[in-house]
This record gives sequence, C-alpha cells and structure tokens, in this order.
Amino acid sequence: MFRGGYTGKILRIDLSKQSAREEALPEELVKNYLGGAGFAIKYLYDEVKPGTPALDKANKLIFAVGPLTATGASCSSRMAVVAKSPLTGAVGMALAGGQFPAEMKRAGYDMIIIEGRAEKPTYFAIKDDEVRFRSAEKLSGMMTTDTQLFIKEELGDHNYRVACIGPAGEKVVPMACIVNERRAAGRKGLGAVMGSKNLKAIAVRGTKRPSIADADSFKKARQAMNKAMKESPVLYPEFAKAGTPMIIDAMTEMGIYSIKNWSATGQINMVPGLGREAQDEMIITRAHCHDCPVGCSQVKLVTSGPYSGYLSEGPEFETTYSLGSTVGVDYLPAVIAADRLCDEYGIDTISAGVAIGWAMELYEKGILTRKDTDGLDLKFGNHAAMIEMLRKIAYQEELGALLGQGTKKAAEKIGQGTGDYAMQVKGLELPAYDVRGAKAHGLNYATSYTGADHNRGYAFQEIFDVPHPEKVDRLAIKGKGRLTKWNQDVRSVTCDCAPMCAFLLDMALPDIACQNTADLVSAASGMSFTAGEIQQIGERLNNIARLFNIGEGFGRKDDTFPKRLMTEPIKEGASKGQLISQKDLDEMLDEYYSVRGWDKNGTPTAAKLKELGLKTH
Amino acid sequence: MFRGGYTGKILRIDLSKQSAREEALPEELVKNYLGGAGFAIKYLYDEVKPGTPALDKANKLIFAVGPLTATGASCSSRMAVVAKSPLTGAVGMALAGGQFPAEMKRAGYDMIIIEGRAEKPTYFAIKDDEVRFRSAEKLSGMMTTDTQLFIKEELGDHNYRVACIGPAGEKVVPMACIVNERRAAGRKGLGAVMGSKNLKAIAVRGTKRPSIADADSFKKARQAMNKAMKESPVLYPEFAKAGTPMIIDAMTEMGIYSIKNWSATGQINMVPGLGREAQDEMIITRAHCHDCPVGCSQVKLVTSGPYSGYLSEGPEFETTYSLGSTVGVDYLPAVIAADRLCDEYGIDTISAGVAIGWAMELYEKGILTRKDTDGLDLKFGNHAAMIEMLRKIAYQEELGALLGQGTKKAAEKIGQGTGDYAMQVKGLELPAYDVRGAKAHGLNYATSYTGADHNRGYAFQEIFDVPHPEKVDRLAIKGKGRLTKWNQDVRSVTCDCAPMCAFLLDMALPDIACQNTADLVSAASGMSFTAGEIQQIGERLNNIARLFNIGEGFGRKDDTFPKRLMTEPIKEGASKGQLISQKDLDEMLDEYYSVRGWDKNGTPTAAKLKELGLKTH
Repeated sequence: MFRGGYTGKILRIDLSKQSAREEALPEELVKNYLGGAGFAIKYLYDEVKPGTPALDKANKLIFAVGPLTATGASCSSRMAVVAKSPLTGAVGMALAGGQFPAEMKRAGYDMIIIEGRAEKPTYFAIKDDEVRFRSAEKLSGMMTTDTQLFIKEELGDHNYRVACIGPAGEKVVPMACIVNERRAAGRKGLGAVMGSKNLKAIAVRGTKRPSIADADSFKKARQAMNKAMKESPVLYPEFAKAGTPMIIDAMTEMGIYSIKNWSATGQINMVPGLGREAQDEMIITRAHCHDCPVGCSQVKLVTSGPYSGYLSEGPEFETTYSLGSTVGVDYLPAVIAADRLCDEYGIDTISAGVAIGWAMELYEKGILTRKDTDGLDLKFGNHAAMIEMLRKIAYQEELGALLGQGTKKAAEKIGQGTGDYAMQVKGLELPAYDVRGAKAHGLNYATSYTGADHNRGYAFQEIFDVPHPEKVDRLAIKGKGRLTKWNQDVRSVTCDCAPMCAFLLDMALPDIACQNTADLVSAASGMSFTAGEIQQIGERLNNIARLFNIGEGFGRKDDTFPKRLMTEPIKEGASKGQLISQKDLDEMLDEYYSVRGWDKNGTPTAAKLKELGLKTH
Repeated sequence: MFRGGYTGKILRIDLSKQSAREEALPEELVKNYLGGAGFAIKYLYDEVKPGTPALDKANKLIFAVGPLTATGASCSSRMAVVAKSPLTGAVGMALAGGQFPAEMKRAGYDMIIIEGRAEKPTYFAIKDDEVRFRSAEKLSGMMTTDTQLFIKEELGDHNYRVACIGPAGEKVVPMACIVNERRAAGRKGLGAVMGSKNLKAIAVRGTKRPSIADADSFKKARQAMNKAMKESPVLYPEFAKAGTPMIIDAMTEMGIYSIKNWSATGQINMVPGLGREAQDEMIITRAHCHDCPVGCSQVKLVTSGPYSGYLSEGPEFETTYSLGSTVGVDYLPAVIAADRLCDEYGIDTISAGVAIGWAMELYEKGILTRKDTDGLDLKFGNHAAMIEMLRKIAYQEELGALLGQGTKKAAEKIGQGTGDYAMQVKGLELPAYDVRGAKAHGLNYATSYTGADHNRGYAFQEIFDVPHPEKVDRLAIKGKGRLTKWNQDVRSVTCDCAPMCAFLLDMALPDIACQNTADLVSAASGMSFTAGEIQQIGERLNNIARLFNIGEGFGRKDDTFPKRLMTEPIKEGASKGQLISQKDLDEMLDEYYSVRGWDKNGTPTAAKLKELGLKTH
C-alpha cells in the first residue's frame, strides 16, 4: 500500500440524504489510474449507467486531485472535475488550478464523489475530517466572487477555499462552469451538473500535509523537473511574463487564429487590438497557482474607458479568441470585462463566445434579426451586444436561452443549414486553433473523449519547435494518428491524472514527462511506477473514456468536424487554401484507430481491452 | 490609569519614511475625549495647522476605535476616520462599521495616525505588534473588492480585514470614500486624503482580546443595554427585518423624502419602485457588523433584467435617495447596481448621487447639453446615464471630473445661479431629509461641523415618536436650537466617541444613552465616568471641532442652506408650503448659539472654553 502522496481517502457525499462517508482509496485504482481524471472517470464509468441524463440526480459529480497535489512538486495544484456532460452527453472532464486543489488534498481527500440532489440550494464545508451541510438559499443567484466571500464569512474563516457555481449553474445552463477564485473548471457544463444537484458550492479547509514516502528520491525528481523547466526555451522568461497570449501573434502569423466564427481566419487585423503587445500593456500582476514557480496567469485591469475597473485573471489565449477574435471584437478592455463577467456568471468563456460568434454570423446573414435578438445589433465587433448576450446566456433570457444550450442544439432548432458552421464537435465548441492549418489539432478535436477539446491532446509539436516524440509538419496528414495518440496518452496521465499543469508538458517536459511523473509519484507514494506503466495509464484512461462514450452511442460518425472545416478552405494568410477534407479526416482516423488498437468504428478491440485490463459492462 | 477597554496604544505611521511607532494613549485624552472621533479630532486640531490643504501631505488621516470596540458590547464595532476634508475644508469625520474596527482593536490599537505621503502606491499590514509596508503598485486602479482579495492573498491569510480606496480615491476625487468589505467611511472625501498619501489600503489582523476591568459591572451594563434594545418599539422586528429603507414610505407620507434634486419633494410616485415593499423583495440575507445582534444591513441582489447579478449591502435609506429619488430613478435594480459600483469605485453614494441629480436638473434646464455630457441623455430617471456618470466621476472623465469636486465647487465654475439649487452645506451634499419639513434636521445640517451631515445630530424626535429629551413638532422653529445641541452632543459621545452604532441611539437608547455609555466605559476601563461627564465629552467634541473650522475661516455665514430651501416652498404632499426662511434660520441659529455658549457669529465664548477645559491655539 502507498505510504505517501495519496491521502488514501475518498469522500462520498450524498446530497439527497445530506450525508458524508469516507471510503478507502483502492490500491488497484491507484495502480491503474494514478489519480485525478483517472480516478474520476473510472468511477464515472462504473457508477453512472449508460443513458443517464446528465442533469438527472443519478449523474455524479466528482472532484479528484492526485498523488502530487500539495506535495511541493511544481505545478501540481490541479484537480479534475468529472461528470457526464450536459453539453455533449459524453464524458465531461475539466481541470482547474488555483488553491482549491491543494486545500482539498490537505483536508485529506484524493477524491470527492457527489451523488443525488439536495432538496434546496445547499453547500457543504469540509474542515479536515468534518463535513457540514448548509443552506445556500441566501446565495441563490449570487455571482461567484460574492458567493465565495459570503461563504467564508458565514464559516467564520476566510481561509476556506471555495469552488462554486454562479447564476448560470443554478439555472443549469449547459455551458455553465465551476469557479474557484478566478480559476474555472470551465468546459462541458459541469456547473450545470452541480446546479442540477442544488449544490451551490464546496468550501474546503485543510491543515494536513501529505507525507512523502521517499523524501530523497522525491527531492531528486523535483530537481530534475525544475531543471527541465528552467532550461525550457519558452517557459522563462516569455511564458512567465506574458502567459498564453504569448502565442496570439504567432498563431496569426501561421494563419490559424480563428476569426469571426472561423469565416475570416488568416486576417491579421486583430493583432494590434488583441495581440501580445496590447495584452502586455494591461497586465498589473501575475498570479500563481499553489506550488507554481512560473505564475503564467496574467492579471489584467481596465483603467479607462467604458469598462474601467474590470479585472480578470486573463484573458487567456483561448478567451481572447472566444470573446475577441471569433466575435470580431478587437477592443481588449471589452474582452477583459466579458472574461470577468463569464467568471462571475459562471459560464464557459469558450462555449459562450463561440456561440455568440455563430449567432453574429446568423445575424449578418439575416437568419437572425433584431426581433430575435431583443433589439441587439448583434453584428461582429459589437462588444456591448456581446456582453449583453453573455448575460442573456447566463440568465436564460430570449436568444440567450437557446445559445446557452450550445451551438449543436441551437443549430438543430434553427435549422437552415446553420449547423454547417456551428463550430462544435460532439456538442463542445471549438477552441481557437483553426485546425484546417494544424491537422493534429484537428484529429485531436475530432477524437478527444470530451469533444472539441484542445486540452486532451494538444499538439504542441505543431506550434512550438519541439521534436518530441517526432518532428512534425503541421499541414501533413500522415503520422497524425500516431502523434495524436501519443499526445492524448501522455497528456492524460501527466496533466489529467497526476495532475500537473499542462503547460509544463508543452513547454518543458515532453521528453521526460512520463519518466518524471513515474519518479515523482513513486517517490511520493512508495509504490513503484515505470515510465511505461505511466504512459499506459494514460492510454487506459483514453480507452475507458471511449467505452463510456460508446455506451452513450458515440462512434466514428461523431469523430468529425463542422462542414465548414471540410469544405471551405482558409481564405487568406499563411494557411490559405487549407482544409481538412472528409478524405483527410478518414485517413487520419484510420491511422489513429489503428495505432490505438480500435476497430474501424473506433471501438477498442478485445485484445486492446485485455492488454489494458479493461472490461466492458 | 485604565485597566481595560482601551489598548492604551496609538500607532503612528509615517508614510514618507515608511516607519511605524507606538505611543502611549494619554489618560488625559481618555478623560476628555473618550475614544473614536473624540481622540481623532483632538489630534487633528492639535497636529494639523490651520490652512493646511486637505490633499497636502501635512494633512493627517486618523482611524480611531473606542473603549467598547471588540469588548462584546452590542453594536460597538465602529470606527471614526478623520482628516481635514477635501470636499468641505472643514473637519472630515466619517464612521464605518463592519469587522475592521474590531480587528484593529484586537491588533492592539485605539488609534492609528497616518502622516506624510508614500513615494509610490503603498499599503501597510498590521499583525498584532508587527507593521509591514508593501508596494501597492500592482493594485493601482483596482476596484475595492478585488483590492481586498489581492491583499489577503498576498499576505497569505484571508482573515486579514482590509480598509482600502478604489480608483476614485487614487485619483483624489474629493468625494472618494474608504471601503472595508461592503461598509464605507463614506462621506467628506476621506478616500481622497488616503489617495493623496499614496496609501491604497490598511490590512489588519489582531488576535488579542481587550480586557475588561470590572466584568460584573460590565455584564450588568450590557444587559441593561440589551434590554433597552429588546424593548425598543422599532428595533425588532421591523428594523432588523428591513433596515433603514423601513422609513422610506413614512418619509414620503410626511412629505420630506427629497425627489429630483429637491424640486419635487412631496410626490409619492417613487414609493412603488423604491419603497419598503420593493426593497423587501430584493433582500436575500442580512449582514451583521461584529458584535451586532440586530443585523440591520440588508443584502440585496438583482436576479433579472439588465442589472442581473449586482449585489449590494444596501441600498440604505440614504442611498435610495441619492441614487434613486433625487436622480428621479425608481428602478431599484439600477439603484442596487449603482450602490455596488460606488463601493467598488470608492465614491460616496450621497455626494455622487446628489451631484448627478443636480446635473440632471441643469441638463433639463438646458444649462448643460449633450455636448457637456459626452452624449449622455442626462435627464431625471435615466438610470443608465446615472450609472455611466458615476464611472465618469470615479475616473474624472469630462463632466464627471467637475461633479466629483462636489456641487459647491462645480456651481462656482458653472455659475448662472446654479449654486442656488446645488444641494450642499459647507460643500457637503445634503442627505435625504427635506429639511423644509423637518426643522431640527435643517438646523443640524446647517451647523454640523462636517457640513450637511445627518449623522452628526440626527433629529430622530422629528421622525419617530420619541419624547426624549422632549416631544417635538417637526415644523416648529422654536426649541430646535436646544434640541439640536442635545442631539449633537449625545450622539457625538455615544455614537462617534464610544463609538456605538447610531441606530441604537435613535431607536432604543435615547433616554439612557449617556448613563449606559458611562456604565459600560467605566466598567470596561476601570476609570470612572458619570453620565454628565459623558454628555460633556460630546459637547467638548462639538466645540473643538468648531474651533478647527473657525481656524479654517468658517463662521455663521456658513451655517446656512442652498437658496432653494429658503425661498421655494415644498410644492405638494404633507409638508406642502414649508420652507426655512432666512428669518427662521436666524431664529434657530440664535437659539442654538445661545444654548451652546457661542457668540452671535458662532464662536465659543471664553467662558464656554474654560468650562470645557479647551484652549485655542
């Protein structure tokens, strides 16, 4: 049994009964799934039956940290939040950093499984071994910052860390998120699952320190990791200084920063307003997650003009796209305001912005009119309209109620071929990378178990000059199946299970990621993991998640793109003329399924399942 | 020497030198000034020379609590904040409640005197005996809620309590305030003084408990006080349930709730939108200051419409006037949003709203045009324009830069007789009570040492059916001099020096206030105060404040009203036809000066000074 790293305890909350009980963390689970997303998705697969509606009380909401969280290992204050997603119907998994994950670990839990549904708005507070349920009726409708403050005040200790939903989660908007401080488990509508359970928040305060089984080895592994970080050509000083917006200009130069609902990718006119220089000017300080030496999170503040006073921890690269370039807005103060408002309402910046960008295109095409928009002039670039539409999404007002369902469902309702340019895969709105000019990104969007999710297998090799596991041509089709598998598996285990911050993998550790994780976890836990076992855990996770999705009816037909990407080439810029045709996609999928040991429909073969020790239900 | 109640220590901060030193609290000071405003104004008088510009580094900013703060005496977590006011040029004194005052006391200080000016934006943190100075450069321009959160995070302990300024204070807007949590030392521009010193915030964390010299006597005095509170005909359940908006309907019925820059007092059309019933509907919970059993502070939240998500601890009665009735706005969600924004920007709700109401009247009269308002349609009732104008005041943009100077200076600049209906006394904008129909309120506005300030001698006898010290007719002129002196002296000592919450005096303790304060303070401190000595401390405070103001050139000529109140009778409602003529005012002033022992110009006589043990410089 593990002697450190893990707390060894799972907390199971039944909201219907307002009860809490502890379970021992099974050693088998640790060996096969390591932690974080691994733990949570394994339990989701075992405990949530196929066909369970995502907003039904039989869905479960699971928070899981990992063996490195709060150990002092760099960049390890991460948690996975998992449930069946109301936006996609597939596995919903999102990660969040900040302080909450470390606090949860220090309270003594590796995982919290939340079941049932409270009769009335509720929150619960964990103080080490003690769990208290409390009414959240007075918090109903409250924005997330105020919610956190009121809970801390009520508990009489502002050092609690709180993860909560905003008004959107309470209204079970399918793109609602879960916010802790200024960080979010943003995507796939996990905030709606929390809202459907009448759970407004979780407060946690922990005073314990996870033990380390082999302190010397752990120190060595940490040093190796920190050395790799220091030697990274991009992590310092650039990434620490600018954060993710560092790459906006580069993406624009490469012609793959998506603009105006992906109709105008390749234009460079957004850079002066949204690019690195504009972003740098608004930075007032940077924020560090717990145990993070980098602090990539840039805090920006608007100090003049109509959005004066708005502060956000961001906007990140992705949010600059979703609340900026894809809605045609190049006025950064508006993006900052919109970013903050999304955090306060508790809605995912990517899905919300992409849905609004799509509605703007419909409005410009005349498919939506001022009658549909409640008088808003919803044209590209109208930031005031964008901001008001965010509010309507959060509060389910008029057109906002439709857009909040996500572009997939909204397009089904509106019809008229609008689904062809509803920028989503499996119901999850697309991140910023125009995959027509970055094919492994494309294959990853198409096959990620959560839908179009850059974080499940980010092809950094197409963006940075990193030769690991191989040097790639971003426009090539061949080889992208193998690359995507590697990215998805390695990322799953290091970033989603350990879990450590994804940016490390992309920018500092690609070639040592699995060995480093093996060394750290082995030293912390006193168990023994090889690099190969570690990588296989990542593969196992991608397979069990696939099994869950197959149970929900997903298959090869869903591993695809909106028609626009397969038929409309990029019109200008460095990726001009590029698209991913059906043939390209098929070629990539065939290779991908093949290296994964999946059949032609993307179903894991019996041999693969056996190899991974997996059983279908 | 006192054995309890007081900490016995003054903390003197020199921002220029970034130094902190402790001084012993002089026993003489305690005997003559008790605490709170008494302490602070005595030091202001002694240490800030006549003619010192309010925004000069020679001005001092003083925070003072009292002998009852954090002792467990009900409603005693109050502090006085004092400086020469940039808005009036007179004594600036404002009180705030919440948690900060108790925390400051528990850190071990009765008073903090802040001198000089930091070279760069700074804050300081007090943890019991330790004082640390820190850069606040990264906090520049930050709203007050974010400021508090960032400071707590930086200090590594969210249980610090923080008093801070917002963007308006940094820009030394003369109506800027100081905010701790959702409470403010709101009036007279003390936030600008703080900003002029480059002091963004004070963080404090105290772990001590003030001792009590005679626990048995203290317990008895507390019980007497709590009994009087319980027996109050209005405190429970009404005031605890509705807070200050309780009286909006009654004020409207009495025809003295001021509307549209005091041009439409007596109208009842605002009640459905702003009155008790509308307010009650928005309440989600109530907030308690430290050691307060009442919790009058009603937290309200907007859950639909364009201001969805805005939460404020309020709006109080006064703010409902300044950001509601006097700007012709009867849409409560807009008032709540405006209230919150004022707290975030750090501007006084009363001065800001009254200034905007006045600008609206100028706009409707054609004296201001859209050219002056940067295109805003600044007519009464336009809440969106009001909210945008608040931002312009905070950020000193265009017309906002002028209005932020206060209506007195703005009227001097605009001319055209606009000063006749600039609703201010000594530069401080008028609170809600239309004094034409409540004469003692009028005399108090005219003579309060801080300008038109309802809190320095509130004539509750004209509002509630309270016969102490005598039954009064609100429309009578005669007797109001004597009444005003009593109100100002008793309130000064109990609410401003002790300091205890003003609502107790108004609603529960008027007939036992001085005796109760004497009993509590004597028991806590181990010193001996009689009720008469206590009341005399209040009188002494009003005299030394008057001396300070005389040094600044104030006299009888300044104890007056805007011309509107003396020449335009109230047009409709229960106070129709009422005004306070120059003759009325003179009669009241003569009586007031006479009972005060002041000469015809309002200067304390040598005999009075001798009686009070005061010396002029």
